[in-house]
Amino acid sequence: MAHHRIALNMKGVPYKTIWVDYCDIEPLSLKLDAPPSTTRAGAPLYTLPLIQDPSTGATVVDSFAIAKYLDATYPGGITLVPEGTDAFQTMFIDVLPSLLTQHLLLLHITRIAPSLNPHSEDYFRRAREMHFGNPLAEIAPVSTHEALWKQAFEGFSHVHGWLNANGECKVFFMGHKPSWADVALVSVLAWLRIYNGRESREWKELMTADEGRWARLWGAMEKYVHRDGGEALP
Amino acid sequence: MAHHRIALNMKGVPYKTIWVDYCDIEPLSLKLDAPPSTTRAGAPLYTLPLIQDPSTGATVVDSFAIAKYLDATYPGGITLVPEGTDAFQTMFIDVLPSLLTQHLLLLHITRIAPSLNPHSEDYFRRAREMHFGNPLAEIAPVSTHEALWKQAFEGFSHVHGWLNANGECKVFFMGHKPSWADVALVSVLAWLRIYNGRESREWKELMTADEGRWARLWGAMEKYVHRDGGEALP
Repeated sequence: MAHHRIALNMKGVPYKTIWVDYCDIEPLSLKLDAPPSTTRAGAPLYTLPLIQDPSTGATVVDSFAIAKYLDATYPGGITLVPEGTDAFQTMFIDVLPSLLTQHLLLLHITRIAPSLNPHSEDYFRRAREMHFGNPLAEIAPVSTHEALWKQAFEGFSHVHGWLNANGECKVFFMGHKPSWADVALVSVLAWLRIYNGRESREWKELMTADEGRWARLWGAMEKYVHRDGGEALP
Repeated sequence: MAHHRIALNMKGVPYKTIWVDYCDIEPLSLKLDAPPSTTRAGAPLYTLPLIQDPSTGATVVDSFAIAKYLDATYPGGITLVPEGTDAFQTMFIDVLPSLLTQHLLLLHITRIAPSLNPHSEDYFRRAREMHFGNPLAEIAPVSTHEALWKQAFEGFSHVHGWLNANGECKVFFMGHKPSWADVALVSVLAWLRIYNGRESREWKELMTADEGRWARLWGAMEKYVHRDGGEALP
């Protein structure tokens, strides 16, 4: 579940999603005059998400930059990156893979590929197989799933420990107000729910874990996680 | 260099330091009716730092709790833990050892022991030897120092990367105002300077690294790092 769409929903900014195959990202970026977000082996690398705002003419690439753009351009309502927290929010996004998302990526990897359209599935499969040096089905065989789920579960508990510093009854990373760190956490929850379903053991375990913290966060943020047109998650 | 003394200096709260040997921490805590900060093997564990505030009668244990107490009791001036940042500050303190301080602890370990008084040196030596399962001199032999310094140096650069999210000309973790995360970073800098000296290769390398970030942070915070009575560091 993409951060930038949750952010747009939190901001209440209407938008239309256009799905782009991996191989079309560079041509589209060049057509829209969007800058590369980074480089790979010295060459410019064009990435999604990318937003184009018809009300200002701006094209913005990279989900954190999009969040900052939305705060600056649509200052009403929720502030995604409250003043003075840029480095903290960046740090959290940086540590999240080793704590949580790398375990969940492996756990879901064989389910992600067939959920893409054929062009993108092929690209995803080849890129991951090159990265891990293994056929997709062998990157994380079923025998590893229990351990991966345990590691992800411990990652959630670790974050719960940090959030306990806020004291009782605080739902969000910054206490009473949602911010970018909550977008990141809720997109992990949404991702887990999409690939496992609300009736799965994984979802049920998480919703009762860590003194109900994730159930409360989901309850507060689910309304921002709908797809285009307000469609609810499975 | 202890976080709580930098915090007291930032708050401008006058204080007197009493040095306590490891073996005297528990009896002193019991005498002052100070709570244990945690447990070890089921038994209460009494730790330093501990402050006793004669103006309120409060006894507070644990450096983060001391910071929160100082903000609540002396709200003027610098706020150590700005509202909404408790979890972020806690996360930073939690990730700092794996990035930075565990490498520096090993690098300095044979220099720390003889800087303590004999009772504490003996306790420190035994505790570390038990933890690492090696005589103190063999925990991090000189042949490992170059690699340890490189790891610490990379840890600083990693934090620099997060701080770059604040944009240009921002000295502190939260931008224009110092907070608890800066206390943690500056106490690492002070520690490094105490054990290496201002003329050391390590200090000079760090002061020119990462686009001068650490030199600027030290410049802004050095005034809070003096010892009792305003004595400057070596």
